[in-house]
Amino acid sequence: MLPSSYEHENCSIARALEMVGERWTLLIIRQAMLGTRRFDEFQAELGIARNVLTARLERLVQAGILRRSLYEERPKRYEYRLTKKGTDLWPVLMALLQWGDRYEAPNGPPVVIEHRDCGGELDDRRRCRRCGEELEAWQVVRRRGPGASRQSVAA
Amino acid sequence: MLPSSYEHENCSIARALEMVGERWTLLIIRQAMLGTRRFDEFQAELGIARNVLTARLERLVQAGILRRSLYEERPKRYEYRLTKKGTDLWPVLMALLQWGDRYEAPNGPPVVIEHRDCGGELDDRRRCRRCGEELEAWQVVRRRGPGASRQSVAA
Repeated sequence: MLPSSYEHENCSIARALEMVGERWTLLIIRQAMLGTRRFDEFQAELGIARNVLTARLERLVQAGILRRSLYEERPKRYEYRLTKKGTDLWPVLMALLQWGDRYEAPNGPPVVIEHRDCGGELDDRRRCRRCGEELEAWQVVRRRGPGASRQSVAA
Repeated sequence: MLPSSYEHENCSIARALEMVGERWTLLIIRQAMLGTRRFDEFQAELGIARNVLTARLERLVQAGILRRSLYEERPKRYEYRLTKKGTDLWPVLMALLQWGDRYEAPNGPPVVIEHRDCGGELDDRRRCRRCGEELEAWQVVRRRGPGASRQSVAA
């Protein structure tokens, strides 16, 4: 935690990072955007330690970024879905993706984000390069890019 | 680190987070964008432990996000400036800022980002709300917002 009396704590970047400023947290949110909902799926897909995953999910529920709902009574099992506050992190993920594509993807982007309706690529202001539409998370699809490895998820 | 054989590691979001997925790192970069250059200034402005700051700066130099240059010979002292790779993280910071403004700023944004030339606010695709120009980091100024505390930096 930043010292609470410090002037820079009153900064929305710092406050956002208090919620999501930890790598696993944003990867959990990425995974939730891809449709992952259950503890074991998060665990398998991220390769994260179970105790760390438990703590991160708990924190995200407390922060109102994920909500938890029961999907099985006996034993009790829960699934996790993004709230509006959670899906509103999409621009953060896209900004990280595009920076990573530019600087950390020597073979080209592993995944290309496209406008579902017309197939145009997402530009750096989240518009469609082809039709110009301003895109939201639910209007895009992912396809394999030039830097995809054999195992990469197609969509 | 994610297990290196895992399919999701080949993801630009994960790779970006390997570089900047730690709260101090992005706060150091924010600070550098505000003009901070010297170790003691970073230390005082962020309230970060010196050993942590040393490690983070080192990592950022190695990653090519900051470059280090000597500004004093005896004793040797260095300053740190963002490279292009570093300033290209501006969209990530703005996305975090805007999410933080929306969800973690009950008194309104502490800082408002404006187009230097015309005073219009930055929109959520980094354009000027007034004149529509697509803005870059060097075209904006910060002013106190409704959520600013007494000590908040004005610009």
